[in-house]
Amino acid sequence: MAKTGFSFSCPTKVVFGVDTHRQLPSLVKERGAARVFLVVDPALVQSQIVQAISSGLSDDGISFEVFAEGTPDPEDVAVRLAFARCQAHGAEAMVAIGGGSTIDLAKAVAILMTNGGEIADYEGIDKFGIPPLPLIAVPTTAGTGSEVSGACVITDTSRDVKMAIRHATYCPAQVAILDPLAVASMPAHVAAYAGIDAFVHAFESYLSKLANPFSDAVNIHAMKLISGSIREFVADRKNTQAALDMLSGSSMAALSFGVTGLGNVHCMALPLGGLFHVPHGLANAVCLPVVAEFNLSARQERYAHVAEILNAGGTGQSEQARAQGAVEAIGGICRDLGIPERLRDVGVTEDALDELARRSYAADYNRWNPRYTTEEEFRELFRRIY
Amino acid sequence: MAKTGFSFSCPTKVVFGVDTHRQLPSLVKERGAARVFLVVDPALVQSQIVQAISSGLSDDGISFEVFAEGTPDPEDVAVRLAFARCQAHGAEAMVAIGGGSTIDLAKAVAILMTNGGEIADYEGIDKFGIPPLPLIAVPTTAGTGSEVSGACVITDTSRDVKMAIRHATYCPAQVAILDPLAVASMPAHVAAYAGIDAFVHAFESYLSKLANPFSDAVNIHAMKLISGSIREFVADRKNTQAALDMLSGSSMAALSFGVTGLGNVHCMALPLGGLFHVPHGLANAVCLPVVAEFNLSARQERYAHVAEILNAGGTGQSEQARAQGAVEAIGGICRDLGIPERLRDVGVTEDALDELARRSYAADYNRWNPRYTTEEEFRELFRRIY
Repeated sequence: MAKTGFSFSCPTKVVFGVDTHRQLPSLVKERGAARVFLVVDPALVQSQIVQAISSGLSDDGISFEVFAEGTPDPEDVAVRLAFARCQAHGAEAMVAIGGGSTIDLAKAVAILMTNGGEIADYEGIDKFGIPPLPLIAVPTTAGTGSEVSGACVITDTSRDVKMAIRHATYCPAQVAILDPLAVASMPAHVAAYAGIDAFVHAFESYLSKLANPFSDAVNIHAMKLISGSIREFVADRKNTQAALDMLSGSSMAALSFGVTGLGNVHCMALPLGGLFHVPHGLANAVCLPVVAEFNLSARQERYAHVAEILNAGGTGQSEQARAQGAVEAIGGICRDLGIPERLRDVGVTEDALDELARRSYAADYNRWNPRYTTEEEFRELFRRIY
Repeated sequence: MAKTGFSFSCPTKVVFGVDTHRQLPSLVKERGAARVFLVVDPALVQSQIVQAISSGLSDDGISFEVFAEGTPDPEDVAVRLAFARCQAHGAEAMVAIGGGSTIDLAKAVAILMTNGGEIADYEGIDKFGIPPLPLIAVPTTAGTGSEVSGACVITDTSRDVKMAIRHATYCPAQVAILDPLAVASMPAHVAAYAGIDAFVHAFESYLSKLANPFSDAVNIHAMKLISGSIREFVADRKNTQAALDMLSGSSMAALSFGVTGLGNVHCMALPLGGLFHVPHGLANAVCLPVVAEFNLSARQERYAHVAEILNAGGTGQSEQARAQGAVEAIGGICRDLGIPERLRDVGVTEDALDELARRSYAADYNRWNPRYTTEEEFRELFRRIY
């Protein structure tokens, strides 16, 4: 029990359901905007969702400019370029249509539009004071949860580091539109990696040392929705009910980790991204089973509850046996989705394991991870899945 | 599944835990306020929580004035008086220490402080545009959830009606401090009525026709927390863990009903308050068991899940039998807490049953209640518990 208290809030208005993208023009107008800047994932420029949203804006006489020059892990260079275009267009609101990278790029531009300067000026917590331009996010992956999270991550190319710009009130999008049409064209492997990322958010936040009753509520339900629909969704991204479950589960899962922190999975995924450019969701997915096993001893009761959520483990079993059932069920999800089991299969070389362990330990997720983890233990975890 | 979409947000920052009231002065200062107006439940003026908060504000050099002249079901007359005092003090922020009536009174004054006029001017939805004075609410009952809800209810004495002033973004308190010290001195019967009120919020919202995945998440966890701790809490309001569970459960339960609506329990409680001044929580509690039985046929699967949440109903039973177990478990909670089982025991007279049914039907909670209910059925429900 946290004696010192914690905070919970969700400043984002989540608009959820079939065809909710049709509400976008009126949501823009409600914010008093007649000119908007659309940040779009380059792969989606011709997609049904972008076409539908563009037509809707045109029909309502809203002037918009499309920016589709972002990249995965967005860089400050792209932020500068988009910011200039956005200023030139005189945009009064932003719309992001894409995954976490696209939404983060839009968040960064929205901050600069009202606060000026360079995005590096705002690295850290609450480093800007003026509310950004209103942002409406339409996530096209059910994973990152960036639409409701209080952070955006931008690469500083001059230092080659990822900066986190955090503001619990101003960094989340003002509105998130969760519409199954937006995820219908996602490739299966992207759906799998993003979906596991969302599950890991809920799972690590639920096990965090800072877990609290509000985070428990959303994390428990997020794990239930995601684990219950991820297989069907990856098999068919046009399955509307599975898409709705994944979209709501992934957004829910991102409501809490800003407060509770995450754990060893994210800690190990970080240098896998930094050193080998393994996509974030894939890096998480490869590390999840071994970390799930490692952390069990610190949270047996919660693992037994996770087993219940995953419909694993029978009645009449001991708590320990049920907790073990959670580990097996999590491994089963990864196997069923065809997640690679070994680091060597995602391009990692053996000589890097020491450096990976060093960086994981330095990342200091030990603040939140339920089991304290030494550098040697990180090395052992990496070795077991090499 | 709602095809048209729904919204979810929690603009309130919830600060939760033992001794979190100590954060109040810094929360006031963060909002740039040096002068605050304290709206306090008259019964709590000498309480430990009010004393502690007053000392804390004094120690930090924050000037405050106390207003303790509110009543249950606050009236426009009290709002006018408090507004004048608040203006005279030059308050820059509000603090409410009390139950739903106290928090609603403070909400109304906060609205007038920035929007001016009379509170009746703002009856309805989104009828004011300027953000109210920042309000920090310290609930002293674990029930109403007014601290996070988007409504305040004020009696218009000229028309003798209760007005609801609603604004999903601006009506919730900016900050809710959930500190067990604030509920430690509540009388047992108040704790019971307020606690049942909170349970009913979660239960009716979970069964609502507009229930959605986000509301499900918080309602399921709220029912779990409340049902798991209400008996211990009513037995001893100084039981810290039970108080924390009730405080978080009751706030969670109020996050959703603004979006999903409520059902027949609230519908029947409304005229019991209007005609016989039965306190809201008590009116809910008397009606809960019979409504729980009435609605079962419309939501058997969800009732079976409620049974699981309440640890009622064995494995291997049919869904119908498990659903019936939920009805019995709910009746058991009411009996264990000594809730009166009959309307005659709370001052209702038999000749009023027709009028009660007429008003319940007119209240039009049928929009959300899972089972459509005729006026005749309302009469029958009232008769069965008369």
